[in-house]
Amino acid sequence: MQGPSELFNTVVNGTPLAQRRAIAKSITLLESTRTDHRAQGDELLTALLPHTGKAFRLGISGVPGVGKSTFIEVLGLYLIAQGQRVAVLTIDPSSSVSGGSILGDKTRMEMLSVNERAYIRPSPSSGTLGGVAEKTREAMLVCEAAGYDVVIVETVGVGQSETAVANMSDMFVLMQLPNAGDDLQAIKKGVMELADLVLVNKADIDPDAAMRAQAQISSAMRLFGLVNNAMGAAQAESYDKNWHPQVMQLSALKNKGVDDFWHAVSQFRALQTANGALEARRKKQSLAWMWERIDAGLKQSFRQDPTVSRLLPEVLAQVASGQLPASTAARQLLAAQSRQT
Amino acid sequence: MQGPSELFNTVVNGTPLAQRRAIAKSITLLESTRTDHRAQGDELLTALLPHTGKAFRLGISGVPGVGKSTFIEVLGLYLIAQGQRVAVLTIDPSSSVSGGSILGDKTRMEMLSVNERAYIRPSPSSGTLGGVAEKTREAMLVCEAAGYDVVIVETVGVGQSETAVANMSDMFVLMQLPNAGDDLQAIKKGVMELADLVLVNKADIDPDAAMRAQAQISSAMRLFGLVNNAMGAAQAESYDKNWHPQVMQLSALKNKGVDDFWHAVSQFRALQTANGALEARRKKQSLAWMWERIDAGLKQSFRQDPTVSRLLPEVLAQVASGQLPASTAARQLLAAQSRQT
Repeated sequence: MQGPSELFNTVVNGTPLAQRRAIAKSITLLESTRTDHRAQGDELLTALLPHTGKAFRLGISGVPGVGKSTFIEVLGLYLIAQGQRVAVLTIDPSSSVSGGSILGDKTRMEMLSVNERAYIRPSPSSGTLGGVAEKTREAMLVCEAAGYDVVIVETVGVGQSETAVANMSDMFVLMQLPNAGDDLQAIKKGVMELADLVLVNKADIDPDAAMRAQAQISSAMRLFGLVNNAMGAAQAESYDKNWHPQVMQLSALKNKGVDDFWHAVSQFRALQTANGALEARRKKQSLAWMWERIDAGLKQSFRQDPTVSRLLPEVLAQVASGQLPASTAARQLLAAQSRQT
Repeated sequence: MQGPSELFNTVVNGTPLAQRRAIAKSITLLESTRTDHRAQGDELLTALLPHTGKAFRLGISGVPGVGKSTFIEVLGLYLIAQGQRVAVLTIDPSSSVSGGSILGDKTRMEMLSVNERAYIRPSPSSGTLGGVAEKTREAMLVCEAAGYDVVIVETVGVGQSETAVANMSDMFVLMQLPNAGDDLQAIKKGVMELADLVLVNKADIDPDAAMRAQAQISSAMRLFGLVNNAMGAAQAESYDKNWHPQVMQLSALKNKGVDDFWHAVSQFRALQTANGALEARRKKQSLAWMWERIDAGLKQSFRQDPTVSRLLPEVLAQVASGQLPASTAARQLLAAQSRQT
């Protein structure tokens, strides 16, 4: 395997083809669980970091069948036609079970995958969601250092993966299907509050349903406090300086609405850059990410502590059966770990 | 201060008046930060635990002005008239700033507070939300061991306090105001998905607005996946065995709807007891609570570690300014703590 400084040079300064190979190698290095690789990976990441941050990070989620791949291919080609370079990463925690992204991202995005201005990487295929998200976050930084202008992180929304994607993107987009019946398909708990924009896809199939879906989602978002409600005059000014989640229609298959979508994204980006929200969001994400990894690390050492792991099964059983108060159990286990070290 | 075994005896077997004094002393003991008190508190809690679990734990939240106190007083007196004993606890993390519950719970619930079948305790007035929630959870167990039939835990919804209350109650009720205008007051992000029941209070003021609010909230909850959508025949059977969040109207001031509300609560309780959901929810809450306290303890030791606390400010600054990758920073700090111990 190449050393970190060699990889760094090729990622940042290589020819497009060499870059893509170096990106792939860098990501493989960062995904390795070997301690020496991890140290080299940290060296590489730290070197790359000053070259990152110029890309726009776009998170996209939606249930299987909503048309994410078709949309990302269309959007990717649209952006490439405008002279941009596009990277597509995937978070799919279920791929650690199947040993790879089920549908195979590259075959799903046929035209984008062969375009030399695009880089597509499937989900890391091992580890918890936290681990998968960490690797994807690091892969995103590598792509940014290589000069990709837009990094799209996509997820099918298994478990908490939308939260993971929202926490690493500048803008989080939720794709929805308009339902043919009276009721819309239900939206997953807690996901709507992450959305900066909702796209009702397949609007061509039933335009009336798409229109109704757009209206229903908009009004529900208002009710649930996700968009400002009626405003007084005093609030109107600050309203103009902030972004408020939008609901738009799209037909990815017929390539309709992509232009409008990108226009909204550009507006979002300009607004959030001007008012400092984008920078604040990224800073907050980095710090939250650091604490998330620290928490995960502390929990892992705790569970691996010999005394704790010996006591844990019995304590869990006692708490579950109501013999031991939860807070007392926590104090006992914490004390057991401290005695150990 | 009385010893744990004496307190235990009076809490479980004392006369109503002696019980109330012993409950207050037990809670004071549990709220103490002294190490010897903490050990005594754990002893008391563990002894009380087999006597807990028979009460129904009702969580109630709503913005200031929604009429929580009026409702809890009316509901409490209604339950007492039915021969039940009622405890009311409050979670208000902001009281640690003001040094006590701002409005003074006892004066707010005049008739309930002087009733000998009721016990009212304001929010613990120090600590983080996690600490306040822990003390309230323990206070709840003390009240249960003393034979209270219904424990109401109320919160104004500062920060994440609704989540804390939902995580310790059998049923979580959100109170809402019907708005006079076209738009409803917005609901706090992420709170709607916690609600087992939504109460539109002050329905007497504008019955039409209350009706519209009820319909709007119901349809938004369906859309956001909080209530099952249209069902096929196959799903209908399991639907009957499960609870689906309801939206009801209430006029606490005019004592209208309290009977219907309690009927719904009783239905919820019967259904959730029969299908095992109540027991499963409590077991899950206890285990989640244990892990939450362990996490908090691990984080505290981490932050108090001398090497970590020396390195932390610089590392935080580097992560925030984009000089150090978040995941690298996490690994560095974790390694620093390990070296120390």
